[in-house]
Amino acid sequence: MNALAPALLNPRRIALVGASADPTRLTARAQVYLRRHGFDGALYPVNPRAETVLGERAYPTLADVPGPVDLAYLLLGTEHVEGAIADVAAKGIPVAAILADGFAEAGPEGQARQARLLATARAAGVRILGPNSMGLINLNARTACSVNAALEAESLPAGRLALVSQSGSMLGAIMARGAARGLGFSHLISTGNEADLTASEIAGLLVDDPQVDAILLFLEAIRRADLLAEAARRAHAAGKPIIAFKLGRSSFGAELANSHTGALAGSDAAADAFFRANGIARVTMIEALLEAPALFIGRKPLAAPKRAVSVMTTTGGGGAMAVDALGVAGIETRAPDAVAVEGLKAAGLPHHGRMIDVTLAGTRADKVKAALSALSADPHTDLALSVIGSSAQFRPADAVAGILGAAQAGLGKPVAAFLVPQADVSLRMLGEAGIPAFRTPESCADAIRAFLDWQAPRAVPEAPAVAHALPARPDEADARRLFGALGLETGIAVMATPEAVPEGLRYPVALKILSPDLAHKTEVGGVALNIADAAALKLAAREMLARVAARAPDATITGFLVQPMAKGLAEAILGFRRDPESGPVVLVGAGGVMAELHRDTALRCAPVGLEEARAMIAEVKGLKPLAGWRGLPKGDLEALAAAIVAVARLAAVQEVSEAEINPLIVHAEGQGVTVADAWVVRG
Amino acid sequence: MNALAPALLNPRRIALVGASADPTRLTARAQVYLRRHGFDGALYPVNPRAETVLGERAYPTLADVPGPVDLAYLLLGTEHVEGAIADVAAKGIPVAAILADGFAEAGPEGQARQARLLATARAAGVRILGPNSMGLINLNARTACSVNAALEAESLPAGRLALVSQSGSMLGAIMARGAARGLGFSHLISTGNEADLTASEIAGLLVDDPQVDAILLFLEAIRRADLLAEAARRAHAAGKPIIAFKLGRSSFGAELANSHTGALAGSDAAADAFFRANGIARVTMIEALLEAPALFIGRKPLAAPKRAVSVMTTTGGGGAMAVDALGVAGIETRAPDAVAVEGLKAAGLPHHGRMIDVTLAGTRADKVKAALSALSADPHTDLALSVIGSSAQFRPADAVAGILGAAQAGLGKPVAAFLVPQADVSLRMLGEAGIPAFRTPESCADAIRAFLDWQAPRAVPEAPAVAHALPARPDEADARRLFGALGLETGIAVMATPEAVPEGLRYPVALKILSPDLAHKTEVGGVALNIADAAALKLAAREMLARVAARAPDATITGFLVQPMAKGLAEAILGFRRDPESGPVVLVGAGGVMAELHRDTALRCAPVGLEEARAMIAEVKGLKPLAGWRGLPKGDLEALAAAIVAVARLAAVQEVSEAEINPLIVHAEGQGVTVADAWVVRG
Repeated sequence: MNALAPALLNPRRIALVGASADPTRLTARAQVYLRRHGFDGALYPVNPRAETVLGERAYPTLADVPGPVDLAYLLLGTEHVEGAIADVAAKGIPVAAILADGFAEAGPEGQARQARLLATARAAGVRILGPNSMGLINLNARTACSVNAALEAESLPAGRLALVSQSGSMLGAIMARGAARGLGFSHLISTGNEADLTASEIAGLLVDDPQVDAILLFLEAIRRADLLAEAARRAHAAGKPIIAFKLGRSSFGAELANSHTGALAGSDAAADAFFRANGIARVTMIEALLEAPALFIGRKPLAAPKRAVSVMTTTGGGGAMAVDALGVAGIETRAPDAVAVEGLKAAGLPHHGRMIDVTLAGTRADKVKAALSALSADPHTDLALSVIGSSAQFRPADAVAGILGAAQAGLGKPVAAFLVPQADVSLRMLGEAGIPAFRTPESCADAIRAFLDWQAPRAVPEAPAVAHALPARPDEADARRLFGALGLETGIAVMATPEAVPEGLRYPVALKILSPDLAHKTEVGGVALNIADAAALKLAAREMLARVAARAPDATITGFLVQPMAKGLAEAILGFRRDPESGPVVLVGAGGVMAELHRDTALRCAPVGLEEARAMIAEVKGLKPLAGWRGLPKGDLEALAAAIVAVARLAAVQEVSEAEINPLIVHAEGQGVTVADAWVVRG
Repeated sequence: MNALAPALLNPRRIALVGASADPTRLTARAQVYLRRHGFDGALYPVNPRAETVLGERAYPTLADVPGPVDLAYLLLGTEHVEGAIADVAAKGIPVAAILADGFAEAGPEGQARQARLLATARAAGVRILGPNSMGLINLNARTACSVNAALEAESLPAGRLALVSQSGSMLGAIMARGAARGLGFSHLISTGNEADLTASEIAGLLVDDPQVDAILLFLEAIRRADLLAEAARRAHAAGKPIIAFKLGRSSFGAELANSHTGALAGSDAAADAFFRANGIARVTMIEALLEAPALFIGRKPLAAPKRAVSVMTTTGGGGAMAVDALGVAGIETRAPDAVAVEGLKAAGLPHHGRMIDVTLAGTRADKVKAALSALSADPHTDLALSVIGSSAQFRPADAVAGILGAAQAGLGKPVAAFLVPQADVSLRMLGEAGIPAFRTPESCADAIRAFLDWQAPRAVPEAPAVAHALPARPDEADARRLFGALGLETGIAVMATPEAVPEGLRYPVALKILSPDLAHKTEVGGVALNIADAAALKLAAREMLARVAARAPDATITGFLVQPMAKGLAEAILGFRRDPESGPVVLVGAGGVMAELHRDTALRCAPVGLEEARAMIAEVKGLKPLAGWRGLPKGDLEALAAAIVAVARLAAVQEVSEAEINPLIVHAEGQGVTVADAWVVRG
């Protein structure tokens, strides 16, 4: 594994297995591009049918290549890939990148082929990039080991941004769009199907690369969430932001992202929770993926963001557009405070209003710098934004000078720019200088929103193993016992038979049939409410048994559950599941029809601590009345928070794949919660 | 008024009043730009202190200018503007454009100055563009009568898009961004403060201009909604789309847009309703304002949009991005139906899946054209979208040929393109050819969403005048009588004194104090519920009178309101107000705390017909249970719809500025609604 990072991130001896001698073929491109962009390491085309390939000496087999090889790029047809792994291993090459498709993305047959390939590679000790990988690029080392057509460009700026992309074509598109903006990359790596090496694992390698300042991810799916979480934690420690664009925000997109790469479905809310929990910033606009890094590089997540910015502008309409887009993203543009007003006055600048319009002062660099410096001194905002009008188009050097000056002055908070006109040169100058610069108000707002949402990786709360014994097919009483073990007492009694009425019940009670087979008890007559005393309970249980036996003759009956009737202030729903991509998550929502209609829930990675549980409750609009909103009676939100913590502890109970408490009845302040119904599913 | 259109849209004889002889001054720019861009009409600099200005003969006063003048552009200081109007009038010039600021946008003093200016101009029969106007441009006539710095460009493409902008600087930015995309403008007009001429009125003039195919609006506020509605109606008849970008989507942006132009606040939801009702499309991203027109030009709003598109791509990741962005905007990418599949098969193309990936078939023009033709034949989608990868960057002619071919084939539905890489040349080629082409997946989705939301101007329902007599200060009984006159019977009785208990009441009843002074009756003890019989009613009224007299001694008491106690299935809220920008609007929402938390309402321009009222109800999530959702008992939604129609008829009752029924109790199907509380406010 020690050999992996250099072989993948900076290979100096590359074998192109199956390199075509026909320069018009896709399989010739890697060699063409390596040479075009100045690769000066050792290059070994491997082709049994040609003595030379594109003017370079070729080798019939890998075994014929002299000396060691860092990386083999397999340009072979699908059916020849698996066989080539043995040669890669025999030659002692640590990594094989694989171009061919026809694997996991191509139906059951392809999935089987990919599984065989992976098994072969594992057995041989070879790591795999792909299949379906467009290859890898290290621009500082002039190593364009890729077939991506974006490498047709005569030159590409090297830099300190690393990109890992599950889409090969997006890798090229992002590189090309970056080049036009003066944004240079260190590495661009196409992970394709991720049979073995994942974007998650490669992100971890990039954290340790001294050529890398920030890691960008273009994701269709999260694979190996554990490795990504670990990489993100180390990236945070190293001061290197990880910024992700992930498909799947809509159900159509999610479906496509997955069919495209052969991954399992994962919900977008879980991905959001995962990114947030692990200190990964997420942008929702593709242009923001390029524009945001300059805002993040060299910075840590703000401990207490104000979600407010200061704005100066040389164009009223353009500035108002930025303020409006920021507002839609939930970020306030705040009028300068007394400190900022002092600074603006001292510089002879206007100082009234939400946005400081320096149009009359013009775009003189000293005025722009003075305005940004003064606004940055306001402790009530997170960032100073400069909105520049026509000077950005016609006098780029003048237009950016003040912004550069302010950024270089080290003002203690980020300085960013939105350029309103067509301003390619100014954008490139700012890009090259590492200043966050935006081409549209919308991507400006998206990037700033991502920056203010960005949090340090959370301290994962302890979730000690739980002493419990869950049967193979748990019924509701089993579920309740498990919740009890997790710290959420559900106050029930169990009757084995209609006659076995327990002592000390608080009447009136509700009675429910117990069965691992009956998910919907009401439908088979398995629920009876408001039972007044022991005699009535016995009778109700007998009748229930008869009803259920008639309606569900095959169901195994494990007894009866008795619980006190409860009527609180409101109902909530608690849920737990293991997302196939993002891992265990816990959910809280308001109960009832309205909450369901409004999909009014909060979701977090599980386990969670009490503080995080409280934050979840605060996110749910439908729970606001319980916080005393509009003078309504307060509910026991502390007990609700404790219940969330308890449910989230299921993360440590590996055999549980899913669970729900619905409804959870929330009583008045200090009076706790009641579990009205609960179930767990073993995975 | 007949002289207005030619003078404003195509002035051939222009006087520049206050033209500076110093070419570095703002007031010199109009002359510089007119000459730079080839104006070949008559140009008259007016400057009392120079015989020549920038090498051209100058005139001491307007009166000295020989022959008639179409347009005077006043480049004078704020304090000299009003005085110059008399000269403009004396010279018989129909329109004066005014550059100076310091009017309505500059506080009370400026507002007074603007009012004086307008009065002077009206009296003199001169129309005003501005003040605070950057001027006007007619590119086909090479008339760059503007000080906008974007005119620094050596050449600008003329075309058939007209732009009216309340922001002068955005006018230049949009023109420059359009030029880079091959999008040419016919007119660009900066309306500034709109003391007289509004974007609304100018849009109406542009409808009749044969050089114009589409009208774009950059709006900070809607002024003269009546003129805009009329222009939009005629634009629809003429087949010329109007597309608007309007600030104010966030409260911060709204505030700024208004302080910037001196307009009154108008709510964004009302603006949305206004645009929709009048057949104006609204985009939310600034780039979409440029990219959308090609999608609209030559088309009418779809009568029954499917809100679904067909997508072909040459890049998996890029295509998935577009599908995802469309999905977030509520638009489905639909897999080809049997007809489309036949066409794809016949062309030897893949035909499986939600998105047709022709990567293997390559970007050959015939394949792309065949794919788009086949997909267009699917009757279940509204549009065919082509997503193009790296060929768009490196082989523009090849990349766009298939799209051009498909667009020219007249497929009966729009063909659009999203270009994934950095593809400036391809974008320009598509722009010049009038093909809708998008640079980002997000603006692509925004423009397509705007196109599918676009509706023909609605037939405004009849709202006959209402026979009623509303006192100067209406109490609740007056409000209820008015609603009765509008067709919503509220079933109440009124008691003048505690003793005057009416016959035939359905007990139990509720009793409320009547007073034009008491908005919050409960707080002064002015509400009593569940009164069982006549004796109890008399007693309750006496006690209430004493309570109210003690707590609100200054309130005028006009009697008592008696209404039957009602408990229905659910509560709704109905509202009416006159938006200062968009005019009368009617609102319906679910009642209760949850609905308030979720701001769960539907809004329309008033009046509305029954069909539109039903559509409003369907939009409100919290009213879904009343439609029988999840087997819940159905409510009388027809009665609710009729109540909306009645409330919306307040549009015809000019003296009412605002009204509310809250709650309106909705009973079971066929059993009507009950007004529990109601008020109206005179304007």
